[in-house]
Amino acid sequence: MLTLLQRSLSLLSFTPLLPLTIAMTLLSTTSHANDTPLTAKQSDPQALGWMQGFPPPNDKLIAQPSSDFFSFPKLRWTVCHIRELMPTTEVSRGIGAPSKLNYELDKNIDAITFTPTGSNRSMTWQESLDANYTDGIMILHHGKVVYERQNGCLNELGQHAAMSMTKSMTGLLAEILVTEGKLDDDALVASIIPELADSGFGDATVRQVMDMTTALDYSEDYADPNADIWKYSEAASPLPKPKDYDGPNGYFEYLQTVKKKGEHGNAFNYQTINSDTLGWIIARTTGKAVNNLLSERIWQKIGAEQSAYMTVDAKGTPFAGGGISAGLHDMARIGSLMLNKGEINGERLFPAAVVEHIEAGGDKAAFAKANYKQLKNGSYKSMWWSYDNPTPVYSARGVHGQRIYIDPAADMVIVRFASHPDASNSKNDPTTIPAFKAVANYLIKK
Amino acid sequence: MLTLLQRSLSLLSFTPLLPLTIAMTLLSTTSHANDTPLTAKQSDPQALGWMQGFPPPNDKLIAQPSSDFFSFPKLRWTVCHIRELMPTTEVSRGIGAPSKLNYELDKNIDAITFTPTGSNRSMTWQESLDANYTDGIMILHHGKVVYERQNGCLNELGQHAAMSMTKSMTGLLAEILVTEGKLDDDALVASIIPELADSGFGDATVRQVMDMTTALDYSEDYADPNADIWKYSEAASPLPKPKDYDGPNGYFEYLQTVKKKGEHGNAFNYQTINSDTLGWIIARTTGKAVNNLLSERIWQKIGAEQSAYMTVDAKGTPFAGGGISAGLHDMARIGSLMLNKGEINGERLFPAAVVEHIEAGGDKAAFAKANYKQLKNGSYKSMWWSYDNPTPVYSARGVHGQRIYIDPAADMVIVRFASHPDASNSKNDPTTIPAFKAVANYLIKK
Repeated sequence: MLTLLQRSLSLLSFTPLLPLTIAMTLLSTTSHANDTPLTAKQSDPQALGWMQGFPPPNDKLIAQPSSDFFSFPKLRWTVCHIRELMPTTEVSRGIGAPSKLNYELDKNIDAITFTPTGSNRSMTWQESLDANYTDGIMILHHGKVVYERQNGCLNELGQHAAMSMTKSMTGLLAEILVTEGKLDDDALVASIIPELADSGFGDATVRQVMDMTTALDYSEDYADPNADIWKYSEAASPLPKPKDYDGPNGYFEYLQTVKKKGEHGNAFNYQTINSDTLGWIIARTTGKAVNNLLSERIWQKIGAEQSAYMTVDAKGTPFAGGGISAGLHDMARIGSLMLNKGEINGERLFPAAVVEHIEAGGDKAAFAKANYKQLKNGSYKSMWWSYDNPTPVYSARGVHGQRIYIDPAADMVIVRFASHPDASNSKNDPTTIPAFKAVANYLIKK
Repeated sequence: MLTLLQRSLSLLSFTPLLPLTIAMTLLSTTSHANDTPLTAKQSDPQALGWMQGFPPPNDKLIAQPSSDFFSFPKLRWTVCHIRELMPTTEVSRGIGAPSKLNYELDKNIDAITFTPTGSNRSMTWQESLDANYTDGIMILHHGKVVYERQNGCLNELGQHAAMSMTKSMTGLLAEILVTEGKLDDDALVASIIPELADSGFGDATVRQVMDMTTALDYSEDYADPNADIWKYSEAASPLPKPKDYDGPNGYFEYLQTVKKKGEHGNAFNYQTINSDTLGWIIARTTGKAVNNLLSERIWQKIGAEQSAYMTVDAKGTPFAGGGISAGLHDMARIGSLMLNKGEINGERLFPAAVVEHIEAGGDKAAFAKANYKQLKNGSYKSMWWSYDNPTPVYSARGVHGQRIYIDPAADMVIVRFASHPDASNSKNDPTTIPAFKAVANYLIKK
């Protein structure tokens, strides 16, 4: 009886839970500022042969425990295969028939031109796809799909990491609960999650968490081996903890250790831990984990073709700050749902005010303090980003190029999955923001 | 802007849960032989409160690295949550509409009585459900669902571990390839998988692998810490290997280390490694991993409601010997497909001969040598079990009570997911085999 247990433990003691390893991973994903990475075509995961063959040859293997599977160009395979590398939980689509997507493809879109931010030369929409390492993209106009491409690791049966677009799903759920009167966004976090009373979140309001204007003593300086992000990573990992580990286990335990720094409500601070706290608030308020509430309120109601899924910590808690993988078509359905202010396939899923709150945007002055050069005059509300635009435009954004982009004036949605070599969206915004605007302008005039 | 997911990715690894059958057999067959386990009602996972709360209290947590998550009564939760504990790969249902299941429920079935094997007292069908720790069961007759129950951890949005019923899916795929002339079952394994030339599988025929009449030097004696099953388990685990580990990594590398013992073709030896070799043969023959071929040939074609999934080793290889989890309704569709000899929803998926080969059963003399007391006069063909019955009856069987049971003469299919405290089906066959026969007799006379 004990043999298996003993063997497990002996294996566990060798597991590479070293922050150094992680730092190397991060450096490898961020090290392309000063050199020229492979192009989209050169780094195509099919062409590079990752994980092909039975078994794949060692030099084509993307696997645990190698810590570089999220480094470029491997990440171009990994973004479609998260569940094969770690435990996940389902966001069930239910068991009914998917809704039909109506297509009215517009062949002129590829030739639309725009000038990338900071550039003198124009680029076509088609060129922007590879410039942004696009894995999948759809444009919807007047409720119809006018453009679609699936490339790289993605196809219509696959799912792609949504990265921080997950936050926008978490924020949407919270905004629904607030609008429906089930969650008071003026309430202090401690009144809902007593375990957080002594943490930096305790005297923040739910709204401050939703809009990430909390003031927390939390460092995401990856170059600093003592940065809080490493402790968060260790706590959140589903990996068995080292024998001598006595820190927090899981998102919820970690959040209790976060301290306050400054005053809440003054400045936008983009910190994933807010999304995980919001996930906890949602779960405690509804009695349902974020993946299950997301299934019940959204995924089962939009006519989704595929279930989505979320990564989990070692206690099964879904990662509300970044864990979703989903199909491209279903992300387009989410975009439609937002554009149509809570209505889809003739059914109203939540009050229009939910979307109106998000569309109105957040505190611009607070946002300006974070100094996002590509997003001047923007804001952040309920974990959605508002752009500087003559009419309101808002977006879910995830690293490496993920987007749900909603332009109500153009009656347009763009959803994009990508695997850009650089994690930071500041690297792809120059070939994204003006491209999206150009398509919107084209469609408005059409 | 780098999200936590990215950092978590590099931290992950998993306890050696694979193959599931191993851990489970070890932990549960040995522990309940001499005491009385909790009843089905007493061990109901909802009632016991496993994994409830945000976070679940420590005494209600079922998680890695504890290796007892497949011990009774925890296994009653775990069988529906495999993906939350380890990496998995999808068996996609595609993105179309599911087929309709036609219901014509028969309220008399619960009162059907039978006498359990070796007992003097009769039992009702309804009583048999709890006696067998049934999580989900469906009876189909003349193409209609006449009976359905989902209990314990299972509901219509969930998936349940199929355990060794996975082997029957692998066997079905192989039989399809053989019947279609794409795979020669007389061919020696070495001619298809050169890497196995020097192993015990090298001079076995594909058919001997399919029917598990290989003669291999392989011990599944769980009490022996040097048994081959432990080396298999270590090799197959998606957990990073210990630093000093120099053994095989993954199913395919392990299989190359298995030696021959005796002569192939004489005796039935139920060894999971045959199924993994068959999975390799299938992948090499078709260029598709078992999960993908299963999706293409079966799951996308039967009108499945849900995608299924399979556990994987550290190289992403799906566990062809036991890794599937699926929804109950979809298992019923598989049963219908078999009963109707390859036709479902008006479409023929493969030649009727595929099922006719399986239905005809395997070598009874070879099977008799394995001395299965509950399955006298039975046989094993293409990883399906044939029962002793006046007319042909065959079944997929998985430990802890999993069944797809097909009785063509009664035009009946029974599918069952269960979480019996004892892994060995010999413990539930006494309250299963006569129960299924009694229902068949009732339906024939109806």
